[in-house]
Amino acid sequence: MRESLWKSVLQLRQNSPLVHNITNYVVMNNTANALLAAGASPIMAHAHAEIEEMVSICGATVINIGTLDEYWIESMYKAAAKAQQLGKPWVLDPVGAGASNLRNTTVAQLLKYKPTVIRGNASEIMALANAGGQTKGVDSTHQSVEAVASAKWFNENTGAVVCISGATDVIVSANQKILIDNGDVMMTKVTGLGCIATALIGAFVASEPDNATEATAAAMALLGIAGEIAVQKAEGPGSLQMHLLDKLYNITEDEFNTYLKVTIEND
Amino acid sequence: MRESLWKSVLQLRQNSPLVHNITNYVVMNNTANALLAAGASPIMAHAHAEIEEMVSICGATVINIGTLDEYWIESMYKAAAKAQQLGKPWVLDPVGAGASNLRNTTVAQLLKYKPTVIRGNASEIMALANAGGQTKGVDSTHQSVEAVASAKWFNENTGAVVCISGATDVIVSANQKILIDNGDVMMTKVTGLGCIATALIGAFVASEPDNATEATAAAMALLGIAGEIAVQKAEGPGSLQMHLLDKLYNITEDEFNTYLKVTIEND
Amino acid sequence: MRESLWKSVLQLRQNSPLVHNITNYVVMNNTANALLAAGASPIMAHAHAEIEEMVSICGATVINIGTLDEYWIESMYKAAAKAQQLGKPWVLDPVGAGASNLRNTTVAQLLKYKPTVIRGNASEIMALANAGGQTKGVDSTHQSVEAVASAKWFNENTGAVVCISGATDVIVSANQKILIDNGDVMMTKVTGLGCIATALIGAFVASEPDNATEATAAAMALLGIAGEIAVQKAEGPGSLQMHLLDKLYNITEDEFNTYLKVTIEND
Repeated sequence: MRESLWKSVLQLRQNSPLVHNITNYVVMNNTANALLAAGASPIMAHAHAEIEEMVSICGATVINIGTLDEYWIESMYKAAAKAQQLGKPWVLDPVGAGASNLRNTTVAQLLKYKPTVIRGNASEIMALANAGGQTKGVDSTHQSVEAVASAKWFNENTGAVVCISGATDVIVSANQKILIDNGDVMMTKVTGLGCIATALIGAFVASEPDNATEATAAAMALLGIAGEIAVQKAEGPGSLQMHLLDKLYNITEDEFNTYLKVTIEND
Repeated sequence: MRESLWKSVLQLRQNSPLVHNITNYVVMNNTANALLAAGASPIMAHAHAEIEEMVSICGATVINIGTLDEYWIESMYKAAAKAQQLGKPWVLDPVGAGASNLRNTTVAQLLKYKPTVIRGNASEIMALANAGGQTKGVDSTHQSVEAVASAKWFNENTGAVVCISGATDVIVSANQKILIDNGDVMMTKVTGLGCIATALIGAFVASEPDNATEATAAAMALLGIAGEIAVQKAEGPGSLQMHLLDKLYNITEDEFNTYLKVTIEND
Repeated sequence: MRESLWKSVLQLRQNSPLVHNITNYVVMNNTANALLAAGASPIMAHAHAEIEEMVSICGATVINIGTLDEYWIESMYKAAAKAQQLGKPWVLDPVGAGASNLRNTTVAQLLKYKPTVIRGNASEIMALANAGGQTKGVDSTHQSVEAVASAKWFNENTGAVVCISGATDVIVSANQKILIDNGDVMMTKVTGLGCIATALIGAFVASEPDNATEATAAAMALLGIAGEIAVQKAEGPGSLQMHLLDKLYNITEDEFNTYLKVTIEND
């Protein structure tokens, strides 16, 4: 998989896919910049009257519920429904799932449109599974074990690839787990890097729609490695963000493969 | 107070309080990054259906009217009313008060929910007092004298701590004024540093809800000092913003106390 | 023109005009920072109840349709109508014109309020002309030739100065084309630099409302030159953005005139 992940990075730069984002106000600028730096072409659009056209012209749609409200929720439903209808990949970021009833009902509805990939932290993935109808949780004292069980439940019931991000990112697909051990704890002090991860998954899955698992792994590896290298030059989260955007743009094969820490576990 | 202000900074890093922000589109990203850098955990949420849940789970709510519209105004009212009901601290930033009738009527209504702290520049504080019903202004040719009179009027009538930010920040509470002389004029060339000041006040007041005056002073001192240090490495407002976020994150006790210029005036 | 463009830059710093922006969520922060760095004072406001007051107190209004929806479209119409009524300059950025029916009908309506300046890329300018009723396109295999024909059609029919931005920026006014050859291809990897160009045009036209052509040329030259210098220090689009804001703030006459590549073609 080491060679194929770097090939995915090159392919994204080559294909420069249009990626449609319905995302939150906090991260729109960063997200657009990260997509551009990695080689994709971002479109941000949410008006009900144009949302289906935007889904149609883009290679993938990313739906992030971070600053949802009634109007935006309707935009998300329309976009997800259209993507499903067209057979286009779409990626769900259930920001803050579990924090409010509104978020739970919104993600429950979105799940009906069968996201291609779901990315969240362990707590969001468990809340999402709960909202989606998973009734038997794993009885564990380890949140990460429970989150993986929720991810497997999603994969079995909807076919979605699920990425649980954290110190180690865990990507769950049929009969397989991919573990990525890149990144740095200072990245948690920059707002929206989770949202950027999801947007990059959207870019990679638009670039190679037939392999959502590999696309997800490539996105998480690229962000983690770029962050890990950027931290070395950073004095804090302000300069980290800048160096991270630079590195998404100028990362080399040698850097990528030197830093890559990926493990595959077959079930 | 010198020792206690630095203790407040450490306490914020330790407590890492959730801070709920209803703020303007321009500054959401910066604000979230500044809160993270200083050690708090930002939440941005405005949907009517979840706003009361968000107020309930957070340590403080920050309401900034910068890019208000009808929907967001209703979110602000709901949040302020809930905070008042629960006895949770909330902070008001009356951006552009005086610039339109809509802003004046909105802040007049928000004042009824008794903000814990109000922060604005001199002109905003005077416009706010006018909207709030202050009838006798001080007859002075010095805007700063008039603004302090407005701040005292608020404090006497509502109990709010009022921070008038400027070259010297003036924090008005019962029988006391705290003056903070940190910061640099280049900070006025970075958008949203006033909004960030207000958000940091929200973080400190969530961290130490029993001492809003000290919390406000700690926030203004931290931002002013971090800015002053950041300016020394900056070539302009772009790099100033980056170095400021870094410094909010990595400032030391020694730096803080070397730069701190605080004066207390008892009435 | 070389001397007069630099004078425009100085005059903007001196006048520090208020610039009202109805712009998209992605670029609001950058746009405000770019306006501040260049010496202007940005205001972002879109509420229907205050939009006319905001147009009235500002020197110019910038309307950018990037993340339009029904509410914001109404804000744009109100602002453009008020600017036209007051004889105040306003600038249109038809982001994504041609990408959806909603965008086309919105810009068609906005054109009725006669923008002072229009800025877009070649494809947007052609889509705009199509939406505005240009029936006879130039039959050319060169997009740039067609876009210039569309720009001339606008200028003849509405009096608008039209800026087609690209590797070479082309500013079309009555009987004249101004070509500006500054900038760098890495600038296309930073989101919103086109939107910033439009906002800077708004600032310059507010500063010198009697010469929209020269104001537009000064804005495009300033951004292109600042970007060109910034790229030399940049390692990628993250640091480019930072250095660009710094350079908008600290550019000198010597730098400006050393880099300026401007050509005037009289028809």
